[in-house]
Amino acid sequence: MIGLVVAFSASAQQALRERPTVASPIVNENMTATFSLYAPSATQVLVVGDITAQGYAEMTRDDKGVWSYTTPEPLAPELYTYAFMVDGVRVSDPGNPFVVRDITTLFNMMLIPGERADLYRVNDVPHGTVSKVWYHSDKMGVDRRLTIYTPPGYCTEGCSHYPVLYLLHGMGGDENAWSELGRTAQIIDNLIAQGKAEPMIVVMPNGNIALQGAPGETSLGFAQPTTQLPHTMDGTYEESFLEIVDFVDNHYFTIAEKSGRAIAGLSMGGFHSLHISKEYPEMFDYIGLFSAAVRPMGRTESPIYEDMEGKLAKQFALNPKLYWIGIGVEDFLYDLNVEYRKQLDEAGYPYTYVETSGGHIWRNWRIYLSEFAPLLFK
Amino acid sequence: MIGLVVAFSASAQQALRERPTVASPIVNENMTATFSLYAPSATQVLVVGDITAQGYAEMTRDDKGVWSYTTPEPLAPELYTYAFMVDGVRVSDPGNPFVVRDITTLFNMMLIPGERADLYRVNDVPHGTVSKVWYHSDKMGVDRRLTIYTPPGYCTEGCSHYPVLYLLHGMGGDENAWSELGRTAQIIDNLIAQGKAEPMIVVMPNGNIALQGAPGETSLGFAQPTTQLPHTMDGTYEESFLEIVDFVDNHYFTIAEKSGRAIAGLSMGGFHSLHISKEYPEMFDYIGLFSAAVRPMGRTESPIYEDMEGKLAKQFALNPKLYWIGIGVEDFLYDLNVEYRKQLDEAGYPYTYVETSGGHIWRNWRIYLSEFAPLLFK
Repeated sequence: MIGLVVAFSASAQQALRERPTVASPIVNENMTATFSLYAPSATQVLVVGDITAQGYAEMTRDDKGVWSYTTPEPLAPELYTYAFMVDGVRVSDPGNPFVVRDITTLFNMMLIPGERADLYRVNDVPHGTVSKVWYHSDKMGVDRRLTIYTPPGYCTEGCSHYPVLYLLHGMGGDENAWSELGRTAQIIDNLIAQGKAEPMIVVMPNGNIALQGAPGETSLGFAQPTTQLPHTMDGTYEESFLEIVDFVDNHYFTIAEKSGRAIAGLSMGGFHSLHISKEYPEMFDYIGLFSAAVRPMGRTESPIYEDMEGKLAKQFALNPKLYWIGIGVEDFLYDLNVEYRKQLDEAGYPYTYVETSGGHIWRNWRIYLSEFAPLLFK
Repeated sequence: MIGLVVAFSASAQQALRERPTVASPIVNENMTATFSLYAPSATQVLVVGDITAQGYAEMTRDDKGVWSYTTPEPLAPELYTYAFMVDGVRVSDPGNPFVVRDITTLFNMMLIPGERADLYRVNDVPHGTVSKVWYHSDKMGVDRRLTIYTPPGYCTEGCSHYPVLYLLHGMGGDENAWSELGRTAQIIDNLIAQGKAEPMIVVMPNGNIALQGAPGETSLGFAQPTTQLPHTMDGTYEESFLEIVDFVDNHYFTIAEKSGRAIAGLSMGGFHSLHISKEYPEMFDYIGLFSAAVRPMGRTESPIYEDMEGKLAKQFALNPKLYWIGIGVEDFLYDLNVEYRKQLDEAGYPYTYVETSGGHIWRNWRIYLSEFAPLLFK
């Protein structure tokens, strides 16, 4: 039997031929982390990412050609992303097969557990289902891809009706961004298990209306992702958004009324959430603007962006249950948000405001989701 | 507005800060492929993978420090996987964000279209839904993760009942392997669209019964994947398999009878398919053994592996509609399969046999699925 075991180990799947020679990263007992790379002929190796305040650290070479770096201080609980720079060439950590794509670039992932990062982990709690689903867009004349989370217990013993959070990504993102970089399924699973959030469906559409789905997931094949997409902030998406709501209401057991619908998004997705929710003021009772762009770009003659004041007046006259704004103090959109809040204040429209440290980064968007979701559908 | 565009491009998501400087890979008009990497201080760069017969090729450096390699001949239509070796260090192609994990190792993906590779592409055809679903295993006392494909039209206008293919992975694989490396959703979508396969549900479980799910997807966190798992070929999985069938029959609109069930798998999954189908001879009418291990490993005293001859006699007395065996002539399990076919021949049990070139590789397993699926449920 041993012979067969060896044969399997040697060639069972193609991957087994090549193994990382160095374990990396290692989270040490004191919650520092050590990153290592075997690169004997390199002259400089950096680890880059949010593990250091300045965004990178020099690694040092031992006499066997292994470069390593240990953080001088314990790392705060968080989901970190990093990569290596080997003599100026950016590479993934070959010791770490856990990667996530952020628009055009792969990052390795590492999680320091504890505190809020425990919301981002898979814990031994009941898990919802994450599905990749295609709906037909009459407006665009094509099928388009959605990520849909249904909560634990969805249609297991009969089908109850659930509220729906529509959760929108930023420019260059796609329908995978919130579930992968945003850890949506983990956050919602954990919040539900802790009794902090209501069981809900989360719908994560693709906000790049010119595309059918994420890079690699459509008939464009493995084409290079691009952020220069037409129609992403010119009204087309907002005009067609109710197609998605209709699809979800027709195919899932939803609470198909204003009190059962939330819409939130990050950056461009915050922009979309703002404009969709004011365009259809009877559709959403919960609105979340995460590091939101506020003003239109591109084809601003879209009727979507006309009469913003009048539409906001209509929306707030209908008393949405929650209008939530979150932004980091270092965000390049901070001033725009100050200005927008001033507009809301002057009109006397109530909203909840959360300010965090940091800028336009996923760390903040995971925090915002973790704070926003418990406020919904109560 | 330009200012905002620039700000977005510069920092909208973290990824935008770092961009690959070299486009790679490029599929040229004549279907050769060019791989490139900027690595000015490297002394040797290889491209490794199945793009060359010997598994690697030397890249050459230009005066700007860009290493490149163009295949001397057009590549046959296929889904290829590759990586770079920079002075002995294995790295992913920073120009190509499309990667797939095979057990412990990341590979970049590249697809040369045409012929059978068009089955592996996302084409503009109706798409099924791919879901990550958790079931409870009473046997193991834990929740475990499944990948489930439901075909286009599943429960869109009322719920018809569909047959189910249970599709099992190899040692070290997981519930993601068939959908990612095996391109199952693409193959089944395309075969259904061409009228070659019946609409079916495909259930891809995790065959490592000691685990709840794939690396990174359970409470083990981002722990290094391992192939040294207990209980993978000692009968435990086979003994508990009907839990999965029950879950699927209870939660999906299935044809819950022998004529509506197929089971197939690669390598260890072929072994599992062989033993599950003979253990429960009234459950599966279609059996597929892809590069199958045949004989038990580990705890061979399991009742599952007792009286193989008697159980096969019972299974074949019930006339399964298809018993399908596929293997490559270079597979290290080839001789075992010759021996097993001899046993079937001597007993007079009918089966379909397909022999391909190559060995124990995903190229073959995608071919086998593409050949096997059209024979099911007819």
